[in-house]
Order: sequence, then C-alpha cells, then structure tokens
Amino acid sequence: MISFDEMRKLAHVTPSKIVLLVMDGLGGLPDDQSGKTELETARRPNLDQLATEGICGLAYTVSPGITPGSAPGHMALFGYDPVAYGLGRGIVEALGLDIEVNPGDVVARGNFCTVDDNGRISDRRAGRLPTETTRDLCALLNDNVRVAGTEISFFPGKEHRFVVRFRGEGLSEKVGDTDPQHEGMEPLEARPLDETADATAAVINDVITQTRQLLAGKHPANMVLLRGFSQHPDFPSLPDVFHLTPACIATYPMYRGVARVVGMDILPAGESLQDQIETLTEYWDSYDYFFLHYKKTDARGEDGDFAAKAQAVEEFDAVLPSILTLKPDVLLVTGDHSTPAALAMHSWHTVPVVLWAKYCRKDEVTEFTEPACLRGGLGQIHAAELMSLAMANALKLNKYGA
Amino acid sequence: MISFDEMRKLAHVTPSKIVLLVMDGLGGLPDDQSGKTELETARRPNLDQLATEGICGLAYTVSPGITPGSAPGHMALFGYDPVAYGLGRGIVEALGLDIEVNPGDVVARGNFCTVDDNGRISDRRAGRLPTETTRDLCALLNDNVRVAGTEISFFPGKEHRFVVRFRGEGLSEKVGDTDPQHEGMEPLEARPLDETADATAAVINDVITQTRQLLAGKHPANMVLLRGFSQHPDFPSLPDVFHLTPACIATYPMYRGVARVVGMDILPAGESLQDQIETLTEYWDSYDYFFLHYKKTDARGEDGDFAAKAQAVEEFDAVLPSILTLKPDVLLVTGDHSTPAALAMHSWHTVPVVLWAKYCRKDEVTEFTEPACLRGGLGQIHAAELMSLAMANALKLNKYGA
Repeated sequence: MISFDEMRKLAHVTPSKIVLLVMDGLGGLPDDQSGKTELETARRPNLDQLATEGICGLAYTVSPGITPGSAPGHMALFGYDPVAYGLGRGIVEALGLDIEVNPGDVVARGNFCTVDDNGRISDRRAGRLPTETTRDLCALLNDNVRVAGTEISFFPGKEHRFVVRFRGEGLSEKVGDTDPQHEGMEPLEARPLDETADATAAVINDVITQTRQLLAGKHPANMVLLRGFSQHPDFPSLPDVFHLTPACIATYPMYRGVARVVGMDILPAGESLQDQIETLTEYWDSYDYFFLHYKKTDARGEDGDFAAKAQAVEEFDAVLPSILTLKPDVLLVTGDHSTPAALAMHSWHTVPVVLWAKYCRKDEVTEFTEPACLRGGLGQIHAAELMSLAMANALKLNKYGA
Repeated sequence: MISFDEMRKLAHVTPSKIVLLVMDGLGGLPDDQSGKTELETARRPNLDQLATEGICGLAYTVSPGITPGSAPGHMALFGYDPVAYGLGRGIVEALGLDIEVNPGDVVARGNFCTVDDNGRISDRRAGRLPTETTRDLCALLNDNVRVAGTEISFFPGKEHRFVVRFRGEGLSEKVGDTDPQHEGMEPLEARPLDETADATAAVINDVITQTRQLLAGKHPANMVLLRGFSQHPDFPSLPDVFHLTPACIATYPMYRGVARVVGMDILPAGESLQDQIETLTEYWDSYDYFFLHYKKTDARGEDGDFAAKAQAVEEFDAVLPSILTLKPDVLLVTGDHSTPAALAMHSWHTVPVVLWAKYCRKDEVTEFTEPACLRGGLGQIHAAELMSLAMANALKLNKYGA
C-alpha cells in the first residue's frame, strides 16, 4: 500500500460518487445439513446482478487468521491499515455517543456488572440492565464521584454500557483494563502501563472505589468494569488524504464513532434500512463518498441464527435497486469481517466483496457468495486496498510516478 | 520480499539466461460489443503456447488501485520496490537521452510551451513543436543563458521536449515544478521545497527569466515549463544485487534511462521490433539477462485504438518463435501496467504475466488473456516479486537459511 503522503498527491476531486455498503459480519460458514453458507442460502438476485456486472473477491481486514473487531474492520474498509491506526474501545464508544472528547481527555468503555459477596464478577453485564436504569446510575455517579483536579463524567449508553470521561492535566491513556473479561474473577485494579500513567491510574482507582461504595445497594448493578482507556486519536482524515467529502449513514453508535474519527459527516440514519436509504437519497448531491452500515447480518450471526442471518441478507438485497437508482459511479459491497452463525461470533474468515463500476474489468463471477467470490478478479485482498481501488474506479487518482 | 542484502547472498552466476519481454501497457478492458479485451481479441498462438507450457498470473506494480507511470512500472519489473526506489521525471528523461549526469548535477524535464499575452499557458506543448525546432531553440538557449557559478545546458528531446541540466556547487533537487500541469494558468515560480534548495531555486528562476526573454519572438514556443528536478539516484544495481550481466534493448529513451539506473548495458535497439530481435540475437552470448521493451501496445492503447492495440499484440506474438530459437532458460512476458483503449491512458488494472521455464510448475492456463491469467499459478502478484521468480527458475538462487 502506498503511504497517505503519496495518496494525498494522487487523489483529486471529481463529481463521481463512491458508495460503500457494509453488511456487518457478512461472511459465514456452511450449514451442516445443506452445505451452504448463510449468503449462499439467501435469495440475492440484486447482489448476484452486481457480482455479474462487477469484479469480486474475498477480503481480510487485518491479516489471514486474525479476527477483527468492528473498529479495525471498518478502519480497513476506509483505507487505513488497522494495525497502524488502532482505536481504543473507549474512544470509539465515546465518539459514537456524541460525547465531547478534547485533546488530553481520557475515556473508557464501562459496563455495570454484578459482583458476589466475595467481590467476584457473577455477571459482566448486570443482567443486561435496562437503559433507563443505566441513565439513573450514571446521574448518581455524576452527582457524587469527585476527584480533586480531575473532572469525572459518566455517560449512559445502551443497556449496561456507559462511557466515563476523565478531564484534567497530564492524563495518560496507558492504563490497563479493569475488566478481566471473565466471570468468576475479581475486577482488576487499574494499572499504569508505563510511568507516564501513574497519576491517571491512581485517579481511576479512586473513582472505582467511590463508585463501588455508591453502588453497594444497587444489585444487580453493584460494580463497574472499565476497558479501552484511550485519548482522541489524531489520524489523517478522508478529506485530507483522499480529498473526499464523506458521509456516514449508520444506525449504531460505534460505526458512527469510527466514521467520525476518519472525518466523515454523520448523517441522521433513522432506525431502519429504509430510513438509511432515504437519508442517502436526501443527501446524495452533498457528498461524493457514502458509507452505509447494515447491522443485522452481524447481529443475527452473533445470535447463532443461521436462517435469520440469511433473511437479513435478503432484506438488504431488496434495497439495492433503490441505491442503484441514484447512479453511483462506484458501488462497493462487503463486510467488515465474517460472523458465521455456526460460531455465533466474529471470525477470521475472509469476506465477500464486489466492486461495481464502469471500468472495473468484470470477472466471470455471477453469484455473490463465498465460493464464487474466491474465483473473482480481486483475488484475496487486504480490505484497506479497497479504498484505492474504489478511488481508481471513480477516476479520482492521478498516475503514480513518471 | 526479501531485502537486497539477502538477495546478494542468495544470487549466484550461472550460464542460464533470463529474457524479460515487456509489452508496454499490455492489460486492457473489454470492448462494449464483443465483451473481449484487446488481448483476448488478438490472434496470439505463440503467447498461448507459452501460457500452456508456462505459469501465468496477474501482476500489479505499485499496489492495487494505483496507476503506475512507466518508471515505477519498470523498476518493479526489475525487482525494485518502486515506492522505495522512486525516480524523478528529470533523471529518467536525462538518462534516456544519454545525457551525462554527474553526482551533484540537477536535471529537469522541460516542455516548450505557448503563453498568451497575459502570460497564461495556452498550449503546454507548443503545438507539439517539430523536433528540429526544439533542437534550434536549445542551441539558442545554450549560447545565451548564463548564470555565474553554474553551467546550464539544454538538451533537445522529441517534439517539444527537452532536458535542462544545472551543474555547479551545492545544488539541490528539492525544488517544485514550474509546470502547473494545466492550461489557462501561469507558469509557476521554482520554489525551494526545503532550505537546502534556496540557491538552486534562485538559479532556476534566473534561467527561466532569461529564457522567456530569449523566446519572446518565438511563438508558439515562447516559454518553457520545467518539472521533475532530480539528481542521479544511487541505487543498488542488478549486477550488484542479482549478480547478473544485464542488457537493455529498448527503442524509447525513457526505458533505456530506467534500465541504465539499475545498471544495464544499453544495446543499440534500432527502430523496429525486428531490429530489436536482431540485437538480441547478436548479443546473445554476452549477457545473461535481457530486457526487451515493446512500446506499441501502450502507444495504441493511449491512442484509444482498440483494433490497433490488438494488432500490436499480434505483431509481437509473431516474433516470439525467433526469440525461442535462442533457447532462453527463463522467458517472462508481461507489461509494466495496463493501458486499456477504453481509457486511452495508463490504468490501475492488473497485467497478464507468463513465466516460461523448464521447472516453472505449469498451471492449467492455456490462453494468455486477462481472464485466463486470473486462474494461473502465480495468482495476483506484485511485479517486483517476478525478478526473484525468474532468478529461481534460472536456478540462480541459493537456498535461504539452513
């Protein structure tokens, strides 16, 4: 991959439009009975038409065998090496919740959890606490947790999730998680990962001690777990590097968060895929790059529900004609990783990708499935290379070198 | 890719011979009517025979989506990472014209151009000036342009093109182009890109001022545009790294220039492909690596002439038997990039490659076309890796590690 410095020189503004459609967790594994994956099982006439007219392949987002989280998965799709441009969990959650994060602030992703009488975690999610309760508990903590010289703020998320922001002088993100990620263990102390973080770790441990006391009678939410301490990254943006005017249409906070980190405008996405298409249509003339995120394929995969995941594919397939009506110059359909129902979690398997554009040099693939994409003209490709290919196909890149 | 330091240890001299045949701009795009590319359309019995007996694939020279210029395209084919070993436009032109460039000299590629009464560029190429006129104008400039302490020399190229060489103490290549690359704009001042180049930029601007005065009555060639200020690169050579005795047979200056940078001997190439084959035959015993460059596939692609590009393929195909008569041990046929007639310019699309050698492990490909090569044993490969593969197939590489 060429550097962003080089890309800045190659990229130029044109009226052509790129649309990136991310079917989260798209790739799957075959069903034991039928021998077909979720995608192969689904009726997908419109995806197959794109595959027929476009160029297909299989993408990996980090490297072969590595199962990516959602943030690295999307960073790669936006053209960033996800290893060089790593995002802390805290910052992604915070940005997705529209929380102001200034340079110097430290944020962490939090869970309300349940600890037993011995202080061991019995439920990392406190029974998936109602969002309303999380709101009340965050208010309680905001009213009472105090550390001299540091401003502490709790922001409620969905269910048991929240974000805590530390604002003050000399804070560092180099602090280990307090969430051991396993039930039956005690929450960990916040430990400094280098000497710059001694003071920050002390502040965090002070906050946790106060929080534990304030939550003592609030079973099942009688403790908190923090992870992903992080500061605002100072990454080059899509407008800066690729000279794009990019917009994000995502219904879930985390994806909006990652999109914001790379400099996308966040458009109102509504609640449904239909709402998202309406937004895309409404804002069509204002941007030259759209990222539209579809969550359901991943969610049903994580549920381990093969049939529901296949159905989620069909639902997405059905809206493709309305996107094509807008006449994008480059349409890229893929996922950020695989989420096979058989595993009920993110996996390392490659993800089908189709790039549809006038000069794409179409291959002989006529089905948008894992086995068909294996024979595609893109081969097996690092997802971060797809951005250059999309730019090239939109005729937005100059020649490299004389 | 392994480093040149490692390659130096692996490579050894053998009598076996490698021939690299570059069909410039080889890759194409399908015709709207027939659905076939230029290469698919051409009759190519000899290329198909090579594909049948050899191992095929698709190559990219920089990275997916990046359209390479000719210099990076060839650097990759010679085994160099074209990003790490970048060449300025000036040095490539200068070397191709057999201009002496000493360490410390700065050279630039120049165009005679036309500016209107307001000083704005109305034709970047001065109506593609006759080569003879360019010769006369360079003589005029050589007789009259004077800067104390710096020797200024103008060297005519083809049509409106020339090279200017600055020879003196303390010169730097870190100067921005004066060619804005767009008509309707004024030529730019030469600007230093860092503080080491202040004096050089002043010299260049002085030269341009004198040149403008000397050309005042010479419409349409009443101004010059300079770009690609560069010094002689100090790159490792093919003899040094691969222990090869390499020779170049190219009819165009730029390709000879790049070949010279990597340490090839430049053989007299004549004017036609037939001349080139004669040179290859004549010098067969004196070298163990030959680079033969065929320009027509690119030129006809850049003309946007689909049929003529297909015909250029056929013309090349016809000379293959006479090359095989020489009994090369390794024959590598590919391009430095694609130049689809549909785009009439270099493009980012991968390029077919066939490697023909006794121990190549042939694949099932029997046609030398873009879709057939996609199913080849080389897969999709970075062009810079082809050099190692050619060396290996020539049995010129030792085992790596114990």
